[in-house]
Parts: sequence; structure tokens; C-alpha cells
Amino acid sequence: MKDYLPGEVQLRNWMLSVILETYSQHGFSQIETPAVENLDRLLGSGGGENEKLIFKILKRGDKLDHADGTSSELADLGLRFDLTVPLARYYANNFAKLPPVLRSIQVGPVWRAERPQRGRLRQFMQCDIDVVGEASVLAELELLSVSLAAISRLGIEAPTLRFNDRRFLDALLSWADVATSEVAAVLILMDKMDKIGREGVIAELSKIALDVGSVAKLETFIRASAASQGLPRDFFVEIGLEGAAIADLEAIAALGDAAANDGVKFLFDPKVIRGMGYYTGPIFELTIDEAGYSIGGAGTYDSMMARFGRPSPACGFSLGFERIALYLAERAAGDKVAQPELYLRCESPRDYAQAKAISDILIAQGIKVAIEGSSRKLDSTLKQLRAANGAQEMSRGAPWVAVVEISATGNRVHRVFGDVPDLAV
Amino acid sequence: MKDYLPGEVQLRNWMLSVILETYSQHGFSQIETPAVENLDRLLGSGGGENEKLIFKILKRGDKLDHADGTSSELADLGLRFDLTVPLARYYANNFAKLPPVLRSIQVGPVWRAERPQRGRLRQFMQCDIDVVGEASVLAELELLSVSLAAISRLGIEAPTLRFNDRRFLDALLSWADVATSEVAAVLILMDKMDKIGREGVIAELSKIALDVGSVAKLETFIRASAASQGLPRDFFVEIGLEGAAIADLEAIAALGDAAANDGVKFLFDPKVIRGMGYYTGPIFELTIDEAGYSIGGAGTYDSMMARFGRPSPACGFSLGFERIALYLAERAAGDKVAQPELYLRCESPRDYAQAKAISDILIAQGIKVAIEGSSRKLDSTLKQLRAANGAQEMSRGAPWVAVVEISATGNRVHRVFGDVPDLAV
Repeated sequence: MKDYLPGEVQLRNWMLSVILETYSQHGFSQIETPAVENLDRLLGSGGGENEKLIFKILKRGDKLDHADGTSSELADLGLRFDLTVPLARYYANNFAKLPPVLRSIQVGPVWRAERPQRGRLRQFMQCDIDVVGEASVLAELELLSVSLAAISRLGIEAPTLRFNDRRFLDALLSWADVATSEVAAVLILMDKMDKIGREGVIAELSKIALDVGSVAKLETFIRASAASQGLPRDFFVEIGLEGAAIADLEAIAALGDAAANDGVKFLFDPKVIRGMGYYTGPIFELTIDEAGYSIGGAGTYDSMMARFGRPSPACGFSLGFERIALYLAERAAGDKVAQPELYLRCESPRDYAQAKAISDILIAQGIKVAIEGSSRKLDSTLKQLRAANGAQEMSRGAPWVAVVEISATGNRVHRVFGDVPDLAV
Repeated sequence: MKDYLPGEVQLRNWMLSVILETYSQHGFSQIETPAVENLDRLLGSGGGENEKLIFKILKRGDKLDHADGTSSELADLGLRFDLTVPLARYYANNFAKLPPVLRSIQVGPVWRAERPQRGRLRQFMQCDIDVVGEASVLAELELLSVSLAAISRLGIEAPTLRFNDRRFLDALLSWADVATSEVAAVLILMDKMDKIGREGVIAELSKIALDVGSVAKLETFIRASAASQGLPRDFFVEIGLEGAAIADLEAIAALGDAAANDGVKFLFDPKVIRGMGYYTGPIFELTIDEAGYSIGGAGTYDSMMARFGRPSPACGFSLGFERIALYLAERAAGDKVAQPELYLRCESPRDYAQAKAISDILIAQGIKVAIEGSSRKLDSTLKQLRAANGAQEMSRGAPWVAVVEISATGNRVHRVFGDVPDLAV
């Protein structure tokens, strides 16, 4: 888990304001759930591998005294591992107070007890929009449009959106005569294609209890499959994909044709699987090809809501907030809100009233003004502030910084760096 | 712990934006620490009663298998109970990358396993500013000025700031010949004055192992003590309060004289104690007298930083975010950002491109636009939206709401409520 320095928080806040403004303009409203949920809600929620990574919270007092030593007895609460399971619980609990179609924004930390790696933390921000209660593919089209608009306003150009559909995967495995009991294992394998390659997946397939004919059919498919701008319509028909799924995929491809004008590439990609078990329809991965990583994922999870007693069509798009922050930080983006900075240095607390009067005037001019004492030597203050300007995370991109000595005999301006205007102090 | 509905989050976000803008104008910068800290840092941090309310996180895997059954062995991490202890840890860890004087803003949830009551939750937002590295009382003066400016911009009029000083309390108890071993017990008792009254405190005092003379002196003081706009200068001298403390209190009282013009009342109040053990200098409580509750607290905690290896003067002001949100919600404040809302209703996903084109134009005019399907009947959609307007938390104060039916044969506008202008769709 990570501490954030002022410059980092500034970038993150700027990202958030851009994202929230874009989402809000499209009729989405922010909601919030607690960080902690009952463990029995988090477990068995279709969260896949993430359910193994839950931080569990120790019971307290009497409840703990009466628990035996097993971990399930010691804890009944856990930190959320995503924002989708809490949303399903929220929707059921607050149904009567929510609008007919809920367009929700959720922004907040989630926790997973993983081995940390670059761009992956044990506490990280998730930034989701979800549409609950809209049955047609319009919900997915809106999620994509709105998320791509946010990405574009963040200054990320030419991302690639890869899409697939769980119904396509189901039809594919059914066409290949894969037994229901083996479906999960085959999907997990196919999800590793990026890591172990086509031949790796094919090699592993033969180790599962699959029919020889099934392996052969899957092998042919895997060798031939490639991400494509057009849809493999003939293959859809060959594997017997249902008409509703084809219509949804056509609508998504049509949105892709329009998005091409904005430099966004849509690719139908049968290799997109997505780990969470709860997806039921279209699934998406948003990547920056130049950087080689994913900056967002989405999917339809129509069966999740029923688990909490309020069956409803639902889909969500999750921006990879931490990855995007890393990407933008490397490009020194997000300095758009930097303001000049002024330090008013008082000889004594008796100068405070005078400093405050000056401060009020300069703040009204858009300058950040801090009032401080003179216990530190002026020279060393200037030196430290100049060093801070060198370190990007401290200066936060201020165009200029100055120190004013407040004194009964007249105030003196000391330039730290940048082009300090006449301050008339 | 609590779910927040869209209208509630809107109010909270508005509060946050006002607070963050005010703080930032005065040279404060936001930092962020993780929700989870090592338990050994949270315990023994001077957090008083709050240390007993920590949610502890169960160890995992091997570490758990090797733990015996005691709670200290089962957990090595905990959820933070305030933002001050994490700040001290942060300051020590990131010292080399921070400016000479750190003016930090921290906003985020903290957790305490308390019995929930009105305005008190087990997960709640804290909103702190702290100044680390400024030795003079200028730090306290800035904290107060800046916090009062934020309170005023939130539309809260005429708050009362009660102040005291831990050094005054120390001098008082020393003057009353209270043995060091009894100081904590006496302070805890005096902190209960609001709950059990003067006579209650006096009655309890005689039950502690105090000298008869000490009880008599304290009794006289407690009977005579009252919050006052002027400082009890003669009494300061009588109990031998050090000159530095008197000078600080004079500076705070002078700020109060200036703040009186803005309707803020400063009172020196010996009954202000504040629970946290880590305070060492001036302490403050900000109250709305009409509502009868505290909306902020502050204090100087010069010894806390040393615990983490970086001794430094420090003080902080914590706004009672949840209390303020409650107060404003009851007064229906914070609807300043409400926008009109429009729903574009498509017969089929084929209408999406047309709806999107209309949406782009209207969003540029400042209208929130959501695109949706027509699986629900138009009548029932209008009815639900009208009901939502009645429920404050759903309508979010939009001045008008309408639905447009998108169709190849011409679009039709349906008013939901409010004064819908000619939309030219």
C-alpha cells in the first residue's frame, strides 16, 4: 500500500474531476458504499480468484472469544475487493429510493492481498460506472461512449477497445462439444493466451479431460482466431450463436465504426475472456497498445443482481485508475491546475493581521498564499524551496514561487524561481 | 457503516470541493495515506480511547497458521482510527520529498468500532489540515483562519470557537498540587463536565486519590471557571503559566477580535480538554451553538512526530465532516450544482447514433443527458421520474426533467417536471 505525495494527489484529483464531470454530464450519479462488507456477501459472489485475496477483519470482544481457530470463524467482515459486488448489494438494499434506471458512478479504494508489482497495489482506486435496469445493448453503448469520452479528455489518444461476448464463448465451447463440467477450466486456460501463447494453450488443453474431437475443434479455432475489425459473421452462424447476441455485437461494431473518427480502434477479439465469473454478455478490454497494458475493462453481468434479491440487467465499465495515473505521470500530464505560490514570512505573530490582509488580496488574484514564521533562516528556506522546484512532486508545476518578508519597516519580495510579477505588497 | 444515495454524495462532493479549494488557496496540498497501518503504529500512539476501537485485520496464510489464539497474535494490521497518526508516520517516511513546512490536507475514511449513534458511524470521513515544521503560533492562527473561511463558504454562520491550552491545564494541576500519577485521571474527569456537570465532576474528584488541598483548589476553580471572551490574565499569573503559552493565547484572542467582524465568537474555555493524549499546546473546539454540537476540533501535538523519528512542531484542525453534512442536509443546502436532466429514449439500438448526436449538442449546453431504451413503458417511466422528483435524494434538485422519444418519424418531448425550455430536438 502506498503513500501519495502532494504532486501525485494533484494529478489524481485532476483525473477524478475530469472523469466525474464527463460521467455526470451523461446522467450518471455518484453513489458510495462502505469499504467493509459482510464476508458471506463477498464470498461466492463470482469474484473468481479475487475472493482468495480478501483482507478479513477480526471479530471483536465476545464474538471473538466464542470463535474457534479457523479463519472463517475468526472473521465475519472483509474489505471489498471490487465495487461491483457492493453495487449489487447496494441496489437491492436501496431499490425503493433509486431511479428507474440506475446510472451509478463509484470511486473508491478496494483491497486485494496480492503480491505487489508495478502498477498493482494492495490498496488501489477503482473508478466504475454501471447501468442497472436497462435491458438493451444501449446500456453497453453508453458505457463505452462515456468512458471513451473521459479517456479522451484525459489526453489519452488512440486506445484500442477489444470486445467479445460470453455468449460467443458459450456457443464456441458448446460447438466444440466441451462438457459443462470442463467449461470453467477451458476458459481459464484460454484467458492465459497472452501469457503462454497459442501453442501453450493448445498443449495445456490436451491435459484436461476433454474429448479428442473437442481438442481438435478448439485447436483449429485457436490457430485461426485473431482480433479483427470486422465480425466473423460466418463463424457466428457456424457455431450457432443466438441472434440477440449477434445483434448486440453488430451494434458495438457500429459504434466502433463511428469511434474510428476519434482515433479509437474497436476489435472483435475472441481472446478477451475476463476473469470474473459473473459476466454473462458482452465483455471489453481497453488497452493502450503503445504502452502494452490495459486501462479499463467492462462487461455485462445480468445474473449478479439476482443473487441479492433484485434481478435486473446490469453492466459496468471500470477504468484502470492506477494504470492511467502511472501513464499520465510518466508524461508529466495533469499539471493544468498549478498556481503560483507565495510565502508570507512574519517576524512575529504580531505581524499576522498584516500578512492576512495581504493574503486575502493575493488569493483573490488566484495566487496560493501561505503564511509562516521566521524560525528557519531565510537563506535555507529559499534553498529548500528551490530544491523543491527541481523535484516535480513538490513544486506541483507552479509557474513561479516567491517569499515576502513581512516587517513593520517595509515588506521585501524574494524570488525563488520563475517569473515573479510586481506584487505591489 | 452507511450507503450514500446520489443526492447525499452530491452534497458531500460539493462540501469537499469548497473545502479543498479554500485550503488549496492558502497553500495547503492534499496528501494520501493507505487505510491500513501496522497495528504497532496505531497502538500506543496517544490515541486514547480510540485505540480500543481499532478494526484489526486477520493475518493470512502461514502467518495465521503460526499465530496462537490471542487477538494480538492473530492480527498485525489495522484500519486507521484517525488521520493524525498516519500523518506522523507519513512525515517520517517521506521527509526528504516534502517541503520545508508541510501544509497538508487529508480527506478520507477512518474506522472505529463504536456503537453507532446519530451523526456517528463506524466508517466516517475525516477532513484534516495540518501544519508540520512551523514552530510559532502562526501555524495555529493559519489553521483557524483557513478552517473558518471554509466553514463560512459552506454557509455556516456564527460558529463559536472555544479554546484552551494543554499547558494551561498542566499549570493548573501543578498549582493544585495534583501528583503526576493522577493528572490523566483528573483530565478525564474534567472532560466529562458537559455530561455530568460541575457538581458531578467535583463529587467524582474526591473519589480519586487526591490530597484534600488539591480537591479544594480544583473545586474553587471549577465553580469559578467559565468560558470568556477575554483571557483570565490574573489567573494565568497566579498558577504560574509560562510566558510563551500566554503569548500564544494572546495571539489567538487577537485573531478572535478580528473574527468577531465575521460573526465568529472566540471563547477561552477551560472546560475544553479534548480526548487525544497527544496534544501539547493550544486546543480548540468549533461548535454550532444553535445545533448544540461540535463541527470541528484542533490542537497542537508537538511530541507526536518524535515517536516516528522526525521530531517537529505540528498542529492540526479536523472538520467534523459528517456532522456538517447532517447539518447542511437538514437545511437542504448544497444543491448549487444541480443541472437539468434529459432522457433520450430510443426505440431500438439502431437509433443510438442519432441520440448520441443530440446528446453531444445538449451536453454542451449544460444539460445532463442519459440515453436509454424503451423496454419500460413510457407512462411508467414518466411516473417513476415524477416520483423521484418528490424524493429529494433522487432528483438532486434539477430545475427541470424531460424525456425525448427518439424515432425515425420525428422526436417527441415529454415534460416530467419543471419549466422545460424549447429543446429544438
